[in-house]
Amino acid sequence: MKTSSRPNLHVILLHYPVVSKNGDIIASAVTNLDLHDIARAGRTYGIRSFYIVTPVRDQLELVDKIVSHWVSGAGAVYNPKRREALSIIRVSESFEAALADIAAGDKVYPKTIVTSARKRPDSLQVNAVRDMIGDGDPYALVLGTAWGLSEDFLNQADYLLEPICGQADYNHLSVRSAAAIMLDRLLGN
Amino acid sequence: MKTSSRPNLHVILLHYPVVSKNGDIIASAVTNLDLHDIARAGRTYGIRSFYIVTPVRDQLELVDKIVSHWVSGAGAVYNPKRREALSIIRVSESFEAALADIAAGDKVYPKTIVTSARKRPDSLQVNAVRDMIGDGDPYALVLGTAWGLSEDFLNQADYLLEPICGQADYNHLSVRSAAAIMLDRLLGN
Repeated sequence: MKTSSRPNLHVILLHYPVVSKNGDIIASAVTNLDLHDIARAGRTYGIRSFYIVTPVRDQLELVDKIVSHWVSGAGAVYNPKRREALSIIRVSESFEAALADIAAGDKVYPKTIVTSARKRPDSLQVNAVRDMIGDGDPYALVLGTAWGLSEDFLNQADYLLEPICGQADYNHLSVRSAAAIMLDRLLGN
Repeated sequence: MKTSSRPNLHVILLHYPVVSKNGDIIASAVTNLDLHDIARAGRTYGIRSFYIVTPVRDQLELVDKIVSHWVSGAGAVYNPKRREALSIIRVSESFEAALADIAAGDKVYPKTIVTSARKRPDSLQVNAVRDMIGDGDPYALVLGTAWGLSEDFLNQADYLLEPICGQADYNHLSVRSAAAIMLDRLLGN
């Protein structure tokens, strides 16, 4: 039996396979501020790495260019705090490649925790997930861009985290805001 | 003595007076995604209104143009959920004008709650602020762009909310992420 230790949480931001406004499976475009905001929140809450997944070669190169600017280019000198945050970013051409990359470092594949804005009967409450990741084993929290992760993708994950609900009958947060709130709920003091 | 009621919270995003990287007092530029992300989080958690404050006329016009597109223009048809969020946005040329506008609706000036990423001895814990705003009186949560609200500004507020701390020795969240986390902590279930 393991004792409680520091969570070993990775965040994966998927641009494929995600759902479009019309319900089609698409590859969405990378948004610059997703990289910055989620890397900064991830660094604040002590996640291990933040994967940007897109199968589009041009987009992979764009992410590499942005990250290089802030981690080893002029941006690193201009703003060392931003360097510290963006240095946790990794890029992968597929979800499977991201998991394999995490497994290469952690010696074991991470359990996957997916997120959705819709309520589903099989989702875990945030406190249950918070307790679970306290075992120190590697976990990957997976967030979808555009209109979210596809049904097929959600069904293949190990765990589903309950959606974020506020006070109102509205839950259309940006993925940047959702990531920040989830990290605060899962890893905040 | 008042009974607990639904919080009457407004959010004010200041672009002046804020601090630059070098510590100077500046008027910062409006960031499009600040409007979208904080309006969406604000709508999710049931805030009453979201004020964008800038003294720069061109910037005020830009915000008006963006908000009009999503609230009454082509964007409202394309994405009614975005319309619902951005309809809580108001624009003001000064902090005082924003407070007066809130007072015009609520019949009383709101108490001001300011935020800072730095630890200060006189800050209130989030649970104390959460309890306080449960009285149903109007409160304005004030967030600074750029490198944050100026010292003078912080000292003039009614209350100071403690900074968001994660697990790590790093607290450089974007204002979008900080707003989302604060609203979840103050108004989440």
